[in-house]
Amino acid sequence: MNRAMIEAAAARIKGHARLTPVLNAPLLDAIAGRRVFVKAECLQWTGSFKFRGGWAAVSALRGAKGVIAFSSGNHAQGVALAAARHGLPAVIVMPADAPEVKIANTRAYGAEVVLYDRTTEDRDALGARLAKERGLVLIKPYDEPEVIAGQGTIGLEIAEQVQGEALVLTCCGGGGLTSGVALALEGRMQVRPVEPEGFDDVARSLASGVRERNAALSGSVCDAIVTPQPGEITFPLMQRLCGPGIVVSDDEALRAMVLAFQHLRIVLEPGGAVALAAALFREDLPETVVAVASGGNVDPAIFGAALARFA
Amino acid sequence: MNRAMIEAAAARIKGHARLTPVLNAPLLDAIAGRRVFVKAECLQWTGSFKFRGGWAAVSALRGAKGVIAFSSGNHAQGVALAAARHGLPAVIVMPADAPEVKIANTRAYGAEVVLYDRTTEDRDALGARLAKERGLVLIKPYDEPEVIAGQGTIGLEIAEQVQGEALVLTCCGGGGLTSGVALALEGRMQVRPVEPEGFDDVARSLASGVRERNAALSGSVCDAIVTPQPGEITFPLMQRLCGPGIVVSDDEALRAMVLAFQHLRIVLEPGGAVALAAALFREDLPETVVAVASGGNVDPAIFGAALARFA
Repeated sequence: MNRAMIEAAAARIKGHARLTPVLNAPLLDAIAGRRVFVKAECLQWTGSFKFRGGWAAVSALRGAKGVIAFSSGNHAQGVALAAARHGLPAVIVMPADAPEVKIANTRAYGAEVVLYDRTTEDRDALGARLAKERGLVLIKPYDEPEVIAGQGTIGLEIAEQVQGEALVLTCCGGGGLTSGVALALEGRMQVRPVEPEGFDDVARSLASGVRERNAALSGSVCDAIVTPQPGEITFPLMQRLCGPGIVVSDDEALRAMVLAFQHLRIVLEPGGAVALAAALFREDLPETVVAVASGGNVDPAIFGAALARFA
Repeated sequence: MNRAMIEAAAARIKGHARLTPVLNAPLLDAIAGRRVFVKAECLQWTGSFKFRGGWAAVSALRGAKGVIAFSSGNHAQGVALAAARHGLPAVIVMPADAPEVKIANTRAYGAEVVLYDRTTEDRDALGARLAKERGLVLIKPYDEPEVIAGQGTIGLEIAEQVQGEALVLTCCGGGGLTSGVALALEGRMQVRPVEPEGFDDVARSLASGVRERNAALSGSVCDAIVTPQPGEITFPLMQRLCGPGIVVSDDEALRAMVLAFQHLRIVLEPGGAVALAAALFREDLPETVVAVASGGNVDPAIFGAALARFA
């Protein structure tokens, strides 16, 4: 895993992923007390940065008959659309109780959705059987070099779009985005991962030096970025390249989501707003911060409730 | 008023206004039954295209001691920020009962807000007195050549960003945006103005050949684009260059706002969503449509209510 892989992914992605804008607003800077730039990956195809990793992985395949992924969220949609645009079949394995809109959207991007029962079926065995029967290649959500390389293209873009010194904050789940961006920006800008309170496996792992696990996997409104533990590939990269992890509360994530609505006119999901929340509400950060706003696939009811509470 | 003025405005605006992205989404195209491109001017500084006209007008001044504008909305904020970035004082005259957040935002962009009582004071007399006393130049919201030229820079960008044939739809109030974009795209793409039902002075004027008035000035959720009648300068331009006006209902505007939230992850105000509403819900349009999404300064309560009804 090296920077050249990110540059190769960038060459394959060019003209296919959106070069998302870096936004800022004087009134947001006033709230933060610093310059806050927002890399608006919510404007990426399928509404999150996951399309980049999906594209990078699919475009690196040679001779595959199709791809398979386990996800009910942003990774599902990113892989589905990337595969469709390569003319490759995609099978997305989702729990049968996943939200209907996510199932429908993934199908609308052209994927075959295979549902399984979380209580009685073994997801991995089901996936392995389908992969073998149909010659499909598994695309993991973060612990996969080409996926990390795809997410890293965001770092190359930030280096072009933001002048001068800045600290980069990323929304962090398994670490694909964080490690890719950190590798892309190595020697140029420091990167720090941001996680929701109570699900700070990466922050704790960076502090202890070993891969720590989250005690639970549900209970945060930032569910899109909750994963069991840092990846085997992503963790050593983050350990080598990143500053200490930052933790924000669910309410801070929701407030950042509302401020992005009011001042940047972009739609973020709570998990996609944690880096912005840190940029706005943490005191011990430098004068200029770039927050990667990683996704905008938010439940309208959650968004409406946050507007009612915080706008 | 000619195309060269738009090109001159574009040269002055370059690096100061945002080159806003053109967004689209496969799932939105599926709903519309056509290709829908959205020029996301809600991502412009101050959240609407009005910053362009403000910048173009302020940057064309020579020797002014400051500027003055009458507005409680997007024009106020656009002029305020444009003036501040030129180091010029701006006075914005607003009714004393304007929403507090609009007064606060306009002040935050560096303007002096002068409030007047709608029932007892004469706004124009107040403005004329201030302008004379302080040597301020009045910047009108649409019937002003440099303002039209500034809004027209959107048309130049669309010509670069969208390949092939397309119909361009604009959200239309007094016609500054519509006439500027139509002039910029003359001979390249046709432009049609879109208005809210019951406030369709431009559509009726284009049909009758004379400047018709709206019967009322309040009562639409699309209040940002309700004006008394087409401008003296903008109307002949629209008459010469534009196709027939299109009218959408308030509910269609709100539904378009919600679909932009869901599929493009941008925040629009209802008046800034009427062009997208026409692109989505009108049948007799060509295969490819570009909708200018003109602004995103929406009341959170209106946005939340629309999500609850239509998401």
